[in-house]
Amino acid sequence: MPASSNVLDRAFHALSDPGRRRMLEQLAEGPASVSELARPLRMSLAAVVQHVQVLEAGGLIESRKTGRVRTCTLSERGMRSTEQWLTDRRTVWERRLDLATVLDETA
Amino acid sequence: MPASSNVLDRAFHALSDPGRRRMLEQLAEGPASVSELARPLRMSLAAVVQHVQVLEAGGLIESRKTGRVRTCTLSERGMRSTEQWLTDRRTVWERRLDLATVLDETA
Repeated sequence: MPASSNVLDRAFHALSDPGRRRMLEQLAEGPASVSELARPLRMSLAAVVQHVQVLEAGGLIESRKTGRVRTCTLSERGMRSTEQWLTDRRTVWERRLDLATVLDETA
Repeated sequence: MPASSNVLDRAFHALSDPGRRRMLEQLAEGPASVSELARPLRMSLAAVVQHVQVLEAGGLIESRKTGRVRTCTLSERGMRSTEQWLTDRRTVWERRLDLATVLDETA
């Protein structure tokens, strides 16, 4: 099922920040706690928590709190829906170019 | 060459609006003038021009003015750089899952 417009709005918004993209790069390597996400970014935990909320709202990650530790995991489904939207556009575009080539050749 | 962080910031920001995504869907079918983009969206020309500027700033489209008509074209390169960023994350993620399966099987 394609992602709803609202979900895509929030997902692409979440992707528009370099710090959040860096977090997704790290999470592609495996789940990480908020502290582990903060370390390479030299960001306060409060700032990372805010970014985590934006990423969750966009459906790109999931997080779970166990005791005092919140662990974040990449959401394969959420990441895939944004990629799929772009792939669908490219498919339409490439089909159009192929058709133009065929029409040129048969002209 | 991968897109710079600033370009990706602007490209993903441009993608976060449903009206702008609708314009990209239309442009994937072929170049269109600002008026042609405005029609299905029932949007003022001024509003469409603003969205066009955001899409251009994100490198997702190019536009050219001939006389009084501005024609917009999808930028294959710009669209591809956002898709590539997401594909790269998925590749890392899937490789990790494959490795986890192999380690499970050899354990």
